[in-house]
Amino acid sequence: MKISELGEFKLIEMIQAKAGLPSYPVVVGIGDDGAVMDVGPRTEVVTTTDMLIEGVHFKRETIPPYDLGYKSHAVNLSDIAAMGAAPVQSFLSVGLTGDTKLADVEEFVDGFLKAGNGVTLAGGDTVSSPSGWVISVTVMGLSPSGKVLRRNMAKAGENLWICGPVGDSAAGLSILLGDTKAGTPEDSDFLIKRHNRPEPMVRMGRILLETGLSNCAIDISDGLCQDLGHICKGSRVGAVIEVEKLPLSQPLLDLAEDNGKDPLQWALAGGEDYSLLFTVAPEKEDKLAALVEKEELDAVPVGRIVPEAGIRVTRDGETVEREEKQGWDHFASQRS
Amino acid sequence: MKISELGEFKLIEMIQAKAGLPSYPVVVGIGDDGAVMDVGPRTEVVTTTDMLIEGVHFKRETIPPYDLGYKSHAVNLSDIAAMGAAPVQSFLSVGLTGDTKLADVEEFVDGFLKAGNGVTLAGGDTVSSPSGWVISVTVMGLSPSGKVLRRNMAKAGENLWICGPVGDSAAGLSILLGDTKAGTPEDSDFLIKRHNRPEPMVRMGRILLETGLSNCAIDISDGLCQDLGHICKGSRVGAVIEVEKLPLSQPLLDLAEDNGKDPLQWALAGGEDYSLLFTVAPEKEDKLAALVEKEELDAVPVGRIVPEAGIRVTRDGETVEREEKQGWDHFASQRS
Repeated sequence: MKISELGEFKLIEMIQAKAGLPSYPVVVGIGDDGAVMDVGPRTEVVTTTDMLIEGVHFKRETIPPYDLGYKSHAVNLSDIAAMGAAPVQSFLSVGLTGDTKLADVEEFVDGFLKAGNGVTLAGGDTVSSPSGWVISVTVMGLSPSGKVLRRNMAKAGENLWICGPVGDSAAGLSILLGDTKAGTPEDSDFLIKRHNRPEPMVRMGRILLETGLSNCAIDISDGLCQDLGHICKGSRVGAVIEVEKLPLSQPLLDLAEDNGKDPLQWALAGGEDYSLLFTVAPEKEDKLAALVEKEELDAVPVGRIVPEAGIRVTRDGETVEREEKQGWDHFASQRS
Repeated sequence: MKISELGEFKLIEMIQAKAGLPSYPVVVGIGDDGAVMDVGPRTEVVTTTDMLIEGVHFKRETIPPYDLGYKSHAVNLSDIAAMGAAPVQSFLSVGLTGDTKLADVEEFVDGFLKAGNGVTLAGGDTVSSPSGWVISVTVMGLSPSGKVLRRNMAKAGENLWICGPVGDSAAGLSILLGDTKAGTPEDSDFLIKRHNRPEPMVRMGRILLETGLSNCAIDISDGLCQDLGHICKGSRVGAVIEVEKLPLSQPLLDLAEDNGKDPLQWALAGGEDYSLLFTVAPEKEDKLAALVEKEELDAVPVGRIVPEAGIRVTRDGETVEREEKQGWDHFASQRS
């Protein structure tokens, strides 16, 4: 059996089975956005890590070194945000080809630090890579004990909210790949920036944890439907996405119209938005809405959690039929 | 300027300068075996990370998947040992080629877990790699506050000790590369195992920290002279290595003699032994020697710290002349 036949999620299941249950002081192991270690009477350490490989996760032709550094850090900060923790320190390991220009590495590090906005770069590794850049980032955050946002805490009857854009990143990627062309340079820059410099929703995550307005969150990395699927599977519930509520940007809608594309495909299956998807009990929504307005956060309700398994997409109450391909498997195909 | 001209250490200096001083609660940032984060009145979290790339750090032809997993974890546990902390949780990210056999990954994970001996595998990432395996491991340990062993705490007048083998790993590598041939299969297996399954000196490190017998340690990854150089530079001291005291194994000595090689070259510049190099004040040596005997640790004195900069190698009091090439720069050459 080759791992390309097995797929990423089966591979993770195999590793998780071998790893077994976490041992105290580790209280959350494999299977959420981050792992959690209890380090004192009131403090937990949340850790997340991601690996990015040239030719698979990025092409250096389509992302400047600064943006690549920014994004490498942001995608990990986004996982910390999805746990509701406060990021504290990061570790950056890079494998670089020998002909790499020092100036490119400097810009890469500048972008990495910019995304962190005060998070300490505390260590890492620099090694030689024979055939392309390799980036591995680990970020650690702190959280008060017993309060981290989990994937498996959604309850039927709760509503589903998103903080941040949906689909813009995939639309930006389609421009970078030459599949689409935007009507204006501003629209093009807007969408490409959403792809190359995603904004981690650290503030929203911390507010949810500190106020207790939500117990359940995930960041949208693989695609809205797929990441919502992780919540549903973990929580043993289903969900309805009301597409008329999705916060689709005007540049995305214009790009879709100009190029004969379905904007919902980008929004539901695109991935790499790094927006925060979370659930809220209806009785807490007024308080959440007030906070969102006061703090100027881009969070909106987009659907609800239901008891029946599966994810249903509706428009004005009518079910929308979708294609099967809904997300991203790291071994089944290669992202460009 | 290409990074192959700049070299690894200048590259790290550049990144360290950009990262700036760590911000509390990070109390030790870039520049030691691990970073340290203060998480409570009595607890610190020690974190270390390493990246291994196929064709640079290992060849899959010369290391079985089980040993590769073992070694990937062991080299990081060795850094935790060099800080004196107790390892708690690990993160394993792997980039795998699509034709990788599932059975190989299973053996790799088995070896990884075996090296950890109870450390929780708490997370990681699995991604596709187009041209060879990539491994990134992060290990976190806990330590009582303010007690971690540092590179920059050596003082003139202290003695220099090593816990574990020196040179065996480099000798084993020379067999794997076909540069030498051992006289017996047992010797060959012994030295190759030292290279493929190095033993992290976690126990020794914890004892040094808990007893306060040492404040200064490093693990030997790049080579005895080079890693001792990190201690000397960080502590603004020099050192003398008394080669007649080095714990050279009989298989290593036999291999050198049979193949016309200099065993000191392996011992002083070989690297990848993952033994623990530490300093001890003379008045504490009796207590250390008693503990080493009681706990059956392979630790011996091998030299001393002196005020004058530089590393001098002596045999029975006479200076031994050495070649300049003493260590390992990840961008200057490629390890096989």
